[in-house]
Amino acid sequence: MEKKRILLLTTGGTIASLPGEDGLQPHRSGVMERELTQLGTYYDLSVRDLMCLDSSNMSPANWQQIAAAVFEEREHYDGIVVSHGTDTMAYSASAVTFMLPGLPIPLVFTGSQIPLADMLSDGPENLRAAFAMAASGRAGVFLAFDRRIILGCRAVKVRAADFSAFESVNAQYAATVSGRGLTINEAACPAPRGEARLCSLLCDRVFLLKLTPGLRPELIDALVEMGYRGIVIEAFGLGGFNVLDRELASLENAVRRGVTIVVTTQCLYDSADLRVYQVGQKLLSLGVIQGRDMTTEAAFTKLMWALGQEQDPRAVRGILETNLAGEITI
Amino acid sequence: MEKKRILLLTTGGTIASLPGEDGLQPHRSGVMERELTQLGTYYDLSVRDLMCLDSSNMSPANWQQIAAAVFEEREHYDGIVVSHGTDTMAYSASAVTFMLPGLPIPLVFTGSQIPLADMLSDGPENLRAAFAMAASGRAGVFLAFDRRIILGCRAVKVRAADFSAFESVNAQYAATVSGRGLTINEAACPAPRGEARLCSLLCDRVFLLKLTPGLRPELIDALVEMGYRGIVIEAFGLGGFNVLDRELASLENAVRRGVTIVVTTQCLYDSADLRVYQVGQKLLSLGVIQGRDMTTEAAFTKLMWALGQEQDPRAVRGILETNLAGEITI
Repeated sequence: MEKKRILLLTTGGTIASLPGEDGLQPHRSGVMERELTQLGTYYDLSVRDLMCLDSSNMSPANWQQIAAAVFEEREHYDGIVVSHGTDTMAYSASAVTFMLPGLPIPLVFTGSQIPLADMLSDGPENLRAAFAMAASGRAGVFLAFDRRIILGCRAVKVRAADFSAFESVNAQYAATVSGRGLTINEAACPAPRGEARLCSLLCDRVFLLKLTPGLRPELIDALVEMGYRGIVIEAFGLGGFNVLDRELASLENAVRRGVTIVVTTQCLYDSADLRVYQVGQKLLSLGVIQGRDMTTEAAFTKLMWALGQEQDPRAVRGILETNLAGEITI
Repeated sequence: MEKKRILLLTTGGTIASLPGEDGLQPHRSGVMERELTQLGTYYDLSVRDLMCLDSSNMSPANWQQIAAAVFEEREHYDGIVVSHGTDTMAYSASAVTFMLPGLPIPLVFTGSQIPLADMLSDGPENLRAAFAMAASGRAGVFLAFDRRIILGCRAVKVRAADFSAFESVNAQYAATVSGRGLTINEAACPAPRGEARLCSLLCDRVFLLKLTPGLRPELIDALVEMGYRGIVIEAFGLGGFNVLDRELASLENAVRRGVTIVVTTQCLYDSADLRVYQVGQKLLSLGVIQGRDMTTEAAFTKLMWALGQEQDPRAVRGILETNLAGEITI
């Protein structure tokens, strides 16, 4: 049987890090060689070093670079793996999901909690799971970590240090790796989205506001003054929000000035449902959009993307309220 | 055997809610009567209605009211239960923990996901667990929910709708309720903190900043200009932070102007450890404080409290770096 052609795009991260004078730093190539030699016995493997960043430093411009490289290479490979730092991997995987509608092949993000250079690294196992998924023929953007394959737009980093760093939030795993090999969960894999396109324009004037008791509405006013076009609010519980004070006037003013506001929950699981409580119904009447069961990472990157694609707030709302890639449960 | 004297302080919340014209609204007393009649067969029960709020609307001033009432009543009861909305219960329980050092009796927050008025409510079970803990003789602030008793300063609301709404983050349960009754985990109960005091001054100029890729440093500058005295930053992973861009200068400026900055992680589990990566070490050298394994709710309310108690940033730092009530793992 002919070997599947898999491309590895490297972007840095812990997986490629080595100890430096002031802590771990990512290094271009080198440490990955030994691993790749072994993977080369199973796959027709190519490597392209895209960047070399601690993922804390990854910016929306870097997401655009990744999306462009994937789009460019999509017809030459059966699947693409992106090695990436864990810190912002869920943001990158969500962003790239929206930027590449109709991607015809699997794109699988992975990384590790311990550098490959360390004997106990989780890197080899994660890379292997990612390659298996990349060779699976299932189109879409995924994240492979600790024997689980998660839809890119459903992944959240929930553990800073444990191997099981990522959770699939409000969605089943797309696949798992076990003694039975790679088991695909067909129901959790995304439906095709038409022809492949590269839609990588993003608006960088989006702010994530995690609500706290006593939050002063002047902050929302300041964001509007600073020219922010979108705000994702991580509200309490089902979408609870301080409404006894002056916050509502600030929100109303922001919406009137064309700012798109999406309300999600700061609870890791379950969704914002503003219809349940009186305070939530007041928010809906102001014109804020329900994030439903989107992760914060998905809601934030989707809003950046929607505002990059459309100018009209009604069109932006239409995008936010539509399930594009499995990020919203219908 | 003489019945234990337990005081129930009511503050509103779902547990006390009834359907209104535009969603659920909290109602003072009434619905709780039936439950309390039953609990009265086990305990010498008193009730005091403190306020009647959807906990989304609970402000730091309300935390002060709760703390003052508990301090006032502490010698007349064996334990106190606070019924409270779930949305901000973890913030309230954390805040009150710091405001009441040396509290000699158990103070137990509880509530429900479904109103008591509903046949399937989790309220009766949660109230019973809370009362059992309040009668246990273990001093400290706790949160009782879904058969688990969590240290108040370790609780996080992780599920918006499920009965198991709260998790004990980076700490064992203080107790559990099972077929064996209430099982106390002595090792997880807080050590006594000297004589009981009411220290309820808080600084309301604290902001919670959840980091996102591409965050513009001007926001930090704006917070300093608005007079914020403290910022809790939910960084990536172990404390990762964008340092390639202009953020560091903004942070440095904020610290120089006397703003206290505490870095925690946006991962639910594990702690921020800035020493591991190069980007984290740069932050430490600027004078930011590590939140270690504190929950965001604990770090945020502790910073409000520390800035309310002390003016000197060095004294504030001393408080933040000391484990006061089990909120930091030593």
